[in-house]
Amino acid sequence: MRDFSDDTSALALNTATLGHNLDGYGAGWSVEQVIDACSMHGFAGIVFWRREIGARAVEIGDRVRAAGMDVTGLCRTPFLVGTEAPETWHDETLASIDIAAGLGTSVLTVVTGGTEPGTKGILETQKRLADRLARVTDHARKCGVRLALEPLNPMFGGNRTCLMTVRDALNVCEMVDHDALGVAVDVYHCWWDSALHEACAEAGPRILGYHLCDWLENTSDMLLDRGMMGDGVADLKAIRRGVEAAGYTGHCEVEIFSRDRWWKENPDAVLATIVDRYKRLC
Amino acid sequence: MRDFSDDTSALALNTATLGHNLDGYGAGWSVEQVIDACSMHGFAGIVFWRREIGARAVEIGDRVRAAGMDVTGLCRTPFLVGTEAPETWHDETLASIDIAAGLGTSVLTVVTGGTEPGTKGILETQKRLADRLARVTDHARKCGVRLALEPLNPMFGGNRTCLMTVRDALNVCEMVDHDALGVAVDVYHCWWDSALHEACAEAGPRILGYHLCDWLENTSDMLLDRGMMGDGVADLKAIRRGVEAAGYTGHCEVEIFSRDRWWKENPDAVLATIVDRYKRLC
Repeated sequence: MRDFSDDTSALALNTATLGHNLDGYGAGWSVEQVIDACSMHGFAGIVFWRREIGARAVEIGDRVRAAGMDVTGLCRTPFLVGTEAPETWHDETLASIDIAAGLGTSVLTVVTGGTEPGTKGILETQKRLADRLARVTDHARKCGVRLALEPLNPMFGGNRTCLMTVRDALNVCEMVDHDALGVAVDVYHCWWDSALHEACAEAGPRILGYHLCDWLENTSDMLLDRGMMGDGVADLKAIRRGVEAAGYTGHCEVEIFSRDRWWKENPDAVLATIVDRYKRLC
Repeated sequence: MRDFSDDTSALALNTATLGHNLDGYGAGWSVEQVIDACSMHGFAGIVFWRREIGARAVEIGDRVRAAGMDVTGLCRTPFLVGTEAPETWHDETLASIDIAAGLGTSVLTVVTGGTEPGTKGILETQKRLADRLARVTDHARKCGVRLALEPLNPMFGGNRTCLMTVRDALNVCEMVDHDALGVAVDVYHCWWDSALHEACAEAGPRILGYHLCDWLENTSDMLLDRGMMGDGVADLKAIRRGVEAAGYTGHCEVEIFSRDRWWKENPDAVLATIVDRYKRLC
């Protein structure tokens, strides 16, 4: 297991930690401010959200690298299934892949969307998801981008996901059987899963991302109350041990949706806290 | 699989469906009103909450049976682990077993409580839980009561449960290895689990209860927004098929926490709706 106690060369920031995934939250820093601050605090990479990029993918990617970092990934495709999947899911997914390629990142996160209308449970939806992924994977490969299927905490079943565990995500990978597909392992979504280590071992090189935060003992909001590492009950070192035992050597991406706590802090203080917690607790 | 289309002989009401698990909700019916109405609507059993019973366990149990029904179960022990477990957990659990015995029911539900202070994840807590269960199981056996460990949706990790899946509950059963222990399978908590059928098959005769409701596509509250059967995305028949394939022949207990919808309805209308949905959709 890698020693992070004095080493941030695998630390990445997901800008959702500064509220950049939604309108009206956070300090409203520009992309340039985020890049400069991450560089100053010793981060090695940044994960952006599509809404921040617009038509500036190449420019932003270059600027990140000029600051000595990498673009770790891009969030995310539209929902591909479920009631809220847009009719334009196909074009929008291809465009997302193009933005990822423009940024120079090899990882595009997929949050799948929920149960397909007219069906029950998740199995039919997973099949539909596999069919739809199969329609975009060749384009992804051509662009040097891999799609990281992110299982979500089961509380997001219904309207946000049909993948509740790493095992679920692997099942869909196996249905599609394409090298552009992999999985993302997020502490918030997976900390509770007794079968996580086994699933990570099966995933092996298909683990395309590892996301850090914490699960607060008393979670007050289903979406926007994630914890800073160390403030919750997730066994962070045990989870990373499982991910790294599977061969993962990539960035550890801090992604904290926190409307009432961290999104209200000065971003510089948030970044400093992340670096401290990362070295001591992750 | 049993045919319920014109048969309510396995249908039970958990009085939480009428808001009786919490103060200040529901129509405030007395236990006697609930018994009479359930009997009139053709229910076969009732599950009470301790707060409804007080010192009247024997009287209430007799009254249920005089109305032609059974007491299907009792909710529930105090939390046995986690920050909110009372210091009196041992005495209170023994007293809960006595109340169940007084009611003449053989099933007492256990919601475990969350992660133990000073620990991370769930594995250490599960061991502590097993130790504590081992201190009450002989008393349960002596009273003819079995303890149904109820896994909760992973969103209740942290402060409410250390059991997220039927597999988790079976692991703890195996640690304790006592015939007074089993599991409860609740649609709300388990609908999303791709490994549910396999876990039920392993559980076999240790399945002590099956709880019905539905998972709403857009769940608005972490605790009090469960759906009526048919209003959500759970594959109810598939889940029951798995439970019955494992050998379960007991009651199907309708348990719907629904502050803003069903708890505001007239209980008679709620019971009529349950019977209709049960026959058609469960």
